[in-house]
Amino acid sequence: MRGAVLYAPRDIRVEDRDDPRIEKPTDAVIRLAATCVCGSDLWPYRGVEPVSGPVPMGHEYVGVVEETGRDVHTIEPGQFVVGSFFASDNTCEICQAGYQSRCVHAELIGAIGTQAEFARIPLADGTLVAAPGMPSDDLVPGLLAASDVLGTGWFAAVAADVQPGKTVVVVGDGAVGLLAVLAARQLGAERIMAMSRHETRQKLALDFGATDIVTERGDEGVARIKELTNGLGAHCVIEAVGTQESMMQAIRATRPGGHVGYVGVAHDVALPGDELFFSGVHLHGGPAPVRRFLPELIELICNRTIDPGKVFDLTLPLGRAAEGYRAMDERRAIKTLLRP
Amino acid sequence: MRGAVLYAPRDIRVEDRDDPRIEKPTDAVIRLAATCVCGSDLWPYRGVEPVSGPVPMGHEYVGVVEETGRDVHTIEPGQFVVGSFFASDNTCEICQAGYQSRCVHAELIGAIGTQAEFARIPLADGTLVAAPGMPSDDLVPGLLAASDVLGTGWFAAVAADVQPGKTVVVVGDGAVGLLAVLAARQLGAERIMAMSRHETRQKLALDFGATDIVTERGDEGVARIKELTNGLGAHCVIEAVGTQESMMQAIRATRPGGHVGYVGVAHDVALPGDELFFSGVHLHGGPAPVRRFLPELIELICNRTIDPGKVFDLTLPLGRAAEGYRAMDERRAIKTLLRP
Repeated sequence: MRGAVLYAPRDIRVEDRDDPRIEKPTDAVIRLAATCVCGSDLWPYRGVEPVSGPVPMGHEYVGVVEETGRDVHTIEPGQFVVGSFFASDNTCEICQAGYQSRCVHAELIGAIGTQAEFARIPLADGTLVAAPGMPSDDLVPGLLAASDVLGTGWFAAVAADVQPGKTVVVVGDGAVGLLAVLAARQLGAERIMAMSRHETRQKLALDFGATDIVTERGDEGVARIKELTNGLGAHCVIEAVGTQESMMQAIRATRPGGHVGYVGVAHDVALPGDELFFSGVHLHGGPAPVRRFLPELIELICNRTIDPGKVFDLTLPLGRAAEGYRAMDERRAIKTLLRP
Repeated sequence: MRGAVLYAPRDIRVEDRDDPRIEKPTDAVIRLAATCVCGSDLWPYRGVEPVSGPVPMGHEYVGVVEETGRDVHTIEPGQFVVGSFFASDNTCEICQAGYQSRCVHAELIGAIGTQAEFARIPLADGTLVAAPGMPSDDLVPGLLAASDVLGTGWFAAVAADVQPGKTVVVVGDGAVGLLAVLAARQLGAERIMAMSRHETRQKLALDFGATDIVTERGDEGVARIKELTNGLGAHCVIEAVGTQESMMQAIRATRPGGHVGYVGVAHDVALPGDELFFSGVHLHGGPAPVRRFLPELIELICNRTIDPGKVFDLTLPLGRAAEGYRAMDERRAIKTLLRP
């Protein structure tokens, strides 16, 4: 089969890879209907994370089940399925508490590389969720978004305790931040302030339900949020970047007793204990347990209540993956969908 | 009146101070029935926090209302009242959300100095809660504990999401940690593991409802908690120390998706963002909004459901405050009660 492989910083090639096959009786093999490039794929692409030899890329996926191992009982060939970037058994105590990304048997899908024609998915019964029938083609981007960016944005909103009547701030205007706006809208937020300076992203944020756009950043951004919230700060702040500045901006924009939900993968962040202590905020986040939300998200997409597929503003055939990476690296595209 | 004043590290004197009087129409003046020395008073006492000239000490208090300002309507002279270390209006949006320690009009009682015969309490209507009638003398230590250490331990348990069936760890065996054990027991925890190496404190922890004593610390302490929790870590971890080691011990002893409630005032703490991110824990804490819990705590004490007064293992007349400080400094006493 064909698959995307990173050889060195900015050297992505689509080449022949071994066809995946059932390795364990709990595996399934799926034929990808669509896959995509993640913001986190840009860390090794840019060489910020080291690249040691050729690595298959991709951890987002939707597709049709080709084959299942003998211990797979709830998923069957022919089903259209969505899964997340962690395989999970969905039965252990941690999964049952809703933290499937930390399942005691968790396996990272990133090691498998789903920017390809086929993929082996471990723990298929726990990991994959079947769509109701075969979705029409225009629903595929939305379902693919559920696999990571929507699920992550949704978790961030839940972690930030978004509820009806609450005021919400979203720090970060990447695909996850934009879909956190959509999640906050669905969860009933009264006011959603998206922090962004990019016109196309501002438009999408408004389309997804933002009520205010804040262009200031850092201390000025915090001051602007305070101005807009009667001097108190927001009830709920979603952090979807992962830098020291974005984390502090999120904490400082939150009122005492409010909630910060953070999903930007932390890079060189150290939170000052005294400031955190006196802030009085709740802090929760980490790698999103997307699996927790998949059944609900698939339903909302399939009944056309939400259209998260709009975050894909570039679609390319898998063979042109390198162009997709380049467009995201240069911020010309929010997110690239690849058709195998 | 007589009151305790800190002149320099380890130089506490009880001397004449001006009688407090109503300064604002929302003030009350109370005659102290009891007051006490807080672990946090030891920071300036030891010179860890700088001491600039003579400062009145103390922020914990129970007593009888002597006089009220003209805008005080719910509190009246003759009532026995309990308050916390932050005066709060109890009506602003932050108070109404349960974060009275961050009231938009909050005033720190520490500046007033309640290790004295009388004290002026600002925002009396919002700050003070009256006991049902005049409590018998043996209830006074418990009510005094509610003023800070019990209220803080209770908040820590609530912040750590303690509920029936949960496994709880308490890091820190000072008065707050010990009363967090009591709180966890009241909130229905199934198992409560107190981390302590001090025999008298271990005994009190068991008396307050601990089911296990863990004597290991740091990485060994975390390993021991993991052993006792099927390798997963505890659902709820209470941090009542405030050092880098205790915070990391608390975070690492918590299972993914679990909750850390931290109330130890942070001293030189910096939380590594990546470890926090991948831990997947909830983090909440800060200066406890004791006022939120006072009505419930006063009821539990007055109907003799709980006896938090047991944390006072040394009682002295106010005039011997210096001895009380010394005993706590040398860890001979858990907490010193002072009788004015």
